[in-house]
Amino acid sequence: MPSIVSVTKSLQSQLGAKIVQTDEAARYAASFDSSKLSFMPAAVIKPRKREELAPVLDLANKHGIPVTPRGRGTTLMGSASPRAGGWVVDLLGLNKITIDPEAGLAHVQAGAKVADIQRAAAAAGWFYPPDPSSKEYCTIGGNIACNAGGMHGGKYGVTRDFVIALKGYLPTGEFVEWGTATKKFSAGFNLRDLWIGSEGMLGVVTDAVLKLIPAPAARYTLLTSFKDEVSAFTAARALFAARVQPAICEFLDRYSVQCAESAMKTTIFPGQPGRPVILLELAGTAAEVRETKAQLLSWAREHALDHRAARTREEAEALWAVRRKCSGAMFQMGDAKLNEDITVPLKAYVPFARFLEKLRKSSGLAIPTFGHLADGNLHVNIMYHKADPRACAAAEAAVQALMEKVVALGGAISGEHGIGLAKTPFLRIQHSDAQVRAMKAVKAALDPKGILNPGKMFEVFEVWKHPRVTASFPWDHK
Amino acid sequence: MPSIVSVTKSLQSQLGAKIVQTDEAARYAASFDSSKLSFMPAAVIKPRKREELAPVLDLANKHGIPVTPRGRGTTLMGSASPRAGGWVVDLLGLNKITIDPEAGLAHVQAGAKVADIQRAAAAAGWFYPPDPSSKEYCTIGGNIACNAGGMHGGKYGVTRDFVIALKGYLPTGEFVEWGTATKKFSAGFNLRDLWIGSEGMLGVVTDAVLKLIPAPAARYTLLTSFKDEVSAFTAARALFAARVQPAICEFLDRYSVQCAESAMKTTIFPGQPGRPVILLELAGTAAEVRETKAQLLSWAREHALDHRAARTREEAEALWAVRRKCSGAMFQMGDAKLNEDITVPLKAYVPFARFLEKLRKSSGLAIPTFGHLADGNLHVNIMYHKADPRACAAAEAAVQALMEKVVALGGAISGEHGIGLAKTPFLRIQHSDAQVRAMKAVKAALDPKGILNPGKMFEVFEVWKHPRVTASFPWDHK
Repeated sequence: MPSIVSVTKSLQSQLGAKIVQTDEAARYAASFDSSKLSFMPAAVIKPRKREELAPVLDLANKHGIPVTPRGRGTTLMGSASPRAGGWVVDLLGLNKITIDPEAGLAHVQAGAKVADIQRAAAAAGWFYPPDPSSKEYCTIGGNIACNAGGMHGGKYGVTRDFVIALKGYLPTGEFVEWGTATKKFSAGFNLRDLWIGSEGMLGVVTDAVLKLIPAPAARYTLLTSFKDEVSAFTAARALFAARVQPAICEFLDRYSVQCAESAMKTTIFPGQPGRPVILLELAGTAAEVRETKAQLLSWAREHALDHRAARTREEAEALWAVRRKCSGAMFQMGDAKLNEDITVPLKAYVPFARFLEKLRKSSGLAIPTFGHLADGNLHVNIMYHKADPRACAAAEAAVQALMEKVVALGGAISGEHGIGLAKTPFLRIQHSDAQVRAMKAVKAALDPKGILNPGKMFEVFEVWKHPRVTASFPWDHK
Repeated sequence: MPSIVSVTKSLQSQLGAKIVQTDEAARYAASFDSSKLSFMPAAVIKPRKREELAPVLDLANKHGIPVTPRGRGTTLMGSASPRAGGWVVDLLGLNKITIDPEAGLAHVQAGAKVADIQRAAAAAGWFYPPDPSSKEYCTIGGNIACNAGGMHGGKYGVTRDFVIALKGYLPTGEFVEWGTATKKFSAGFNLRDLWIGSEGMLGVVTDAVLKLIPAPAARYTLLTSFKDEVSAFTAARALFAARVQPAICEFLDRYSVQCAESAMKTTIFPGQPGRPVILLELAGTAAEVRETKAQLLSWAREHALDHRAARTREEAEALWAVRRKCSGAMFQMGDAKLNEDITVPLKAYVPFARFLEKLRKSSGLAIPTFGHLADGNLHVNIMYHKADPRACAAAEAAVQALMEKVVALGGAISGEHGIGLAKTPFLRIQHSDAQVRAMKAVKAALDPKGILNPGKMFEVFEVWKHPRVTASFPWDHK
């Protein structure tokens, strides 16, 4: 078996040193993602066109070289950190976006930025709803890899709900197409959706066809405050039971609000500091928004302590600032954060709020929580001080208790981040032995040499024992 | 290896003769679906509860006995005909439906009838959109197996778009759950969607959680007529380009209209017999429908020869009768019908209309075509006389030409029916060798003994050479 050095050289002579980069700076930059868990690859491959992936994967498969596909690397889970070294395939160079304004479809390449897709769609009167908070940086390929969600999930759905076709490569270097640019497809097994959310372990996506929806002509933003978390959750349940579907329904618990208020040096509702809030946005045709607004206001009058509507886009932006500030401001409660993205079913919201209160007491840690109420996807932020071994141990125990609780309540250990390395200790809380065996069988069937993104999802990674590199990204919350 | 007779006896002694039926009448009834391709099974197993499937599959897997899951058997593709004999698992006994009106979810068992799910949802103010024409008979398990669509696909999506979690059994008899009753899930490979559309070849679904949408408060129905098919398609493209999304947008070509008119003994638009029509329905909140109606009428005035709105639900029903009559009435053009459910992208509509005209001429056959314009899913009905060998050969050649054409145009050989036995000759037009190999690898990984619904999808079945049984079903078009 030739060494990885000699195979890399042979690939380099085939594709050139601009595409196959082996200098230390390029390799270091590709050695970690937002998880800051770093593993040095032997080369970074930056294809300029789709076809260049065929020889990369063909050679890697032949010689058993690990290949980790990546976009911008905004994942917090370590899904794009090349755990086993080998080659990193950086897809940022494939970033074309073409909107079909008649069919309401976007034809995009894996490296296209999500916000750029949204802007291109909007320019044609269409809307691409999935919007992870890193959308100004992250790529659609990464969003497909972890089935990213965002604030619009409750009404519109997540990445999976908007992908109607994929192109890309099997780990063997064979080109494949899953689905066509039509909204119905029922011919053969659905490997398109098997790829979505598989974190680059079953194939390398190069192209996607995305479904768009007509751009909402009108929006209406309302901020509401509540006595406590249980009241906020109870109110939300009443809203959904009335079949009102806000485009966005963001919750901030009292701790998140305190963070935002201290960062903004103001009180969101005068005289009511530290109250949990729900920030709602209606979207749709002008008539639809007008109709639903009346329902929403009557709900707010009945259930909320206070409410405030935005009269202009600027006022709406000011309300959204509350939501955006809270995440970074949490670092006043600890210099390290475990940002979990669990889901719980609607009917478990109140028991879950009670569980969190208990967890705060038993762990002695601040656990500000916010998230997407309409799809049960809550971001539970466990804050601790890295230098304090007692706090580290408490955080480790708290996240374990959290994961066990959400699964017991019928929820999920991840709603939109994926597993990567960071959540591997919890996969078996979610999935039975039979389920994990089935997934691993599928992995072995499609990637018999195990070259694609090895070490992720199924192998337990001891994230607590692994040092993190010092690096800062423009999308970091702090 | 014990004989299938002795294994069946051992299962019967375990579950009882009411659940494991071996009398000839029961076996004959389970020997075919709506394709009327019949293969005698050794037993029909009718579980009353989910857990009874575990020993069935465990034994079948141990002894290599084929197992074909079925619901009501409305599939035209032969997906539920037990091609390799063995055991048929009839899931009609598992038919519970529970609506969660707060979360907007339906918890259903595989044997639940689709129309019953719609009615239960409607009673709680919610709506389940997928609506295959057999919805008063077919089961949700069957709909999941073939990723069924229907008339609402363009705006709302197909079965896959509404399934958020599945429970069921692996071919080994192990119970598994894919997904939770929440709208976001990103933990592990997505075997839920791999099961959807896999025609009972990868697992047996027993339970599903379905997403519902708020029931539309208002509807508006408009029938429009056009000079010819090209004008109708051009008009539809203009409507979609204006981002109007009707809940239903059904097209009938002139031949389908002639069938409906002769069956109804009237002309749809007085003085304009045999004109292609598009039947549209808007749905949504009262305000939304009012707003879109104005757009729709202005479009109709510009593009249609004539248009007629329904003023009442009864008038709307009368308009829908046109659509319902056309399919059965086609048998005046031949005693046999190949009902294909291909898809073509919007931009290929006009070339496709021209291709169909040529195909009619070259084959000498009547090929009335109707379907779902908003998702490109057209039902191309190739009519011929069974007793005429020349017509049979022409029909066989015509369907081959059709499948090659739709794939060349960027469409699919099946939008909502699946492959089963009837479409196996065409799977390789849609999928490359690498794609088929990947699908077969997944099949072998999850079902190493190949017991689940063998002989389907990948093995070419010579449907033309196989006799069909004489049987009539309440959902037959004739």
